[in-house]
Amino acid sequence: MTEVVLIGLGGIGRSVAEAILQGTFPLKLVAAVDSHPELAGRPMRDILGPAAPRTPVAADLAQLRPMFVGAPGPAVAIVTTGSRLPGVSETLMQCAGLGLHAVSSCEELVFPQHRHPALAGRLNDVAGQHNVAILGTGINPGFAMDALALCMTSVCSRVQQVHCVRSLDAGRRREQLQKKIGAGLPQAEIIAAIERQQLGHVGLAESVALLGAGLGWNLENVEESFEPVFAQSDYAGAMAIAAGHALGMHMTARGVCGKRKVIELELTMAFGAETFDAVYISGTPPVSLRVDGGLPGDVSTVNLLANAACAISALPPGLRTMLDLFPLRCHGGR
Amino acid sequence: MTEVVLIGLGGIGRSVAEAILQGTFPLKLVAAVDSHPELAGRPMRDILGPAAPRTPVAADLAQLRPMFVGAPGPAVAIVTTGSRLPGVSETLMQCAGLGLHAVSSCEELVFPQHRHPALAGRLNDVAGQHNVAILGTGINPGFAMDALALCMTSVCSRVQQVHCVRSLDAGRRREQLQKKIGAGLPQAEIIAAIERQQLGHVGLAESVALLGAGLGWNLENVEESFEPVFAQSDYAGAMAIAAGHALGMHMTARGVCGKRKVIELELTMAFGAETFDAVYISGTPPVSLRVDGGLPGDVSTVNLLANAACAISALPPGLRTMLDLFPLRCHGGR
Repeated sequence: MTEVVLIGLGGIGRSVAEAILQGTFPLKLVAAVDSHPELAGRPMRDILGPAAPRTPVAADLAQLRPMFVGAPGPAVAIVTTGSRLPGVSETLMQCAGLGLHAVSSCEELVFPQHRHPALAGRLNDVAGQHNVAILGTGINPGFAMDALALCMTSVCSRVQQVHCVRSLDAGRRREQLQKKIGAGLPQAEIIAAIERQQLGHVGLAESVALLGAGLGWNLENVEESFEPVFAQSDYAGAMAIAAGHALGMHMTARGVCGKRKVIELELTMAFGAETFDAVYISGTPPVSLRVDGGLPGDVSTVNLLANAACAISALPPGLRTMLDLFPLRCHGGR
Repeated sequence: MTEVVLIGLGGIGRSVAEAILQGTFPLKLVAAVDSHPELAGRPMRDILGPAAPRTPVAADLAQLRPMFVGAPGPAVAIVTTGSRLPGVSETLMQCAGLGLHAVSSCEELVFPQHRHPALAGRLNDVAGQHNVAILGTGINPGFAMDALALCMTSVCSRVQQVHCVRSLDAGRRREQLQKKIGAGLPQAEIIAAIERQQLGHVGLAESVALLGAGLGWNLENVEESFEPVFAQSDYAGAMAIAAGHALGMHMTARGVCGKRKVIELELTMAFGAETFDAVYISGTPPVSLRVDGGLPGDVSTVNLLANAACAISALPPGLRTMLDLFPLRCHGGR
């Protein structure tokens, strides 16, 4: 049994708690941290149900210091407090200071070397000093559009291009996702919101960078672009959306190497979109894979966090990535 | 660059040589061993082409002792001499004695604990003593019907059943495969040959056992069965096969746990069969994956051997399995 501290009790954090409290993972929920005034200080059981411990939710990880400093055996923090690394990195370093491995849904942590190389270096140093590992994972980034493709390249002697497509019907997803894709907004508003970077999915560039690193490609350029998908006629599915308003978004990212586009990711999150994942590898041999019905977003992220919490203590200390959990891939270059 | 010794210069061994000699893998072919009188003693270059070294093929690994004992850096043997472990295990122990990691296409080595637990224990001990790793891999067993499915369970909190289907048109494969599936044989002959265990694919039971071990299931029973696929009418594809004669074989394997069938593998290798791979996971969430056109057999096996040779020195010493190269999977039980 690995002891787990949950840091962040938002939607994903609570779902992780639920998964652990079902009792099938070799994980034991021992503490939770959330600074939100409606959560901090309340018994975990009140928030997470009768299977949770009675101990109160801590407002700050520092309050848990007596619980972990000098404790035997490994314990893991599951951190679900944000998508951007600068907002999460202090927490990750605090975890390391308490001797806790950390697994996080922070999208930028999936390949922090891309946007935050200096911070990634510091995290690696701090984790190494405290003999713990830090890992970012989730379904996207972390699996559907990167690790899965890398796993498939194990059968290749060379890879020329990786093309991943993920498409999902936003009507089946939680409100938070529906908001971040601007569903229901009129044309001018969604375009303005995209320009102000208020909308869109964090992590496509991280997937591109992870794929590039995994395949040993020195990417010259990683680009992302977001564009709205508009309703051609009135849409009357899980949400009513008038013709001309946004059903959601189509996002793309590209990685360029030797002036050639070697990585292409396409992510559609929109009301009424087909739900599937696909990976197309142009290589020797080519590989064409499709997941019918797709890999469901939230539940897969929750399970990847829990499964990674079971696996992380076997990894070497430091800042780790999904490449460490999928060491077999194409090592044959382009 | 990792130095490689090829042991076995049959079809797969020569294809591995070709892949390495193309120069894209960080692997350097330094020696080859084959006891066949038409091969031993001849310059490697005569057999493997102008990119190979001039040094002669050794008749026995022992001849290469001066090359490896006390050498710096890791070297890897790629062993492609047989499907059954008892015929390969001496070679694997010799490799360990020379300080060579070993990667092998030996089907039974993919999960040797299943059919040969005592021998697996000895291999683990010998590898550990010499600080090297031993690994069995290939497309099937080793990837398409086991490791790939395990990788997909990373998104699951629980798995109730794993069902893998692999189907391939034997007309596109080499003669050796066509022979082992009894293609073209009349009904009485193929049935007798299956009963005498002269035909069929080695490794389905190993895939079942690997899946069971990966998911933490204590399998009570692993069963295999082989049945011919007969031509309903005269078949005039890559080989002419008369009506009533065998097009090939349909093989199944099952793993039972708690009296329930929890693993089911179906492998069809027959002339005219559709070529695809599929993985169906009954779990939370369910996963349905399909590889259109399939993962091609020989080339994928060759590439998995080469890619594993690049990855093996990072594994802990001892007898390893593909579970070590895919440490992330469902840890949540059934």
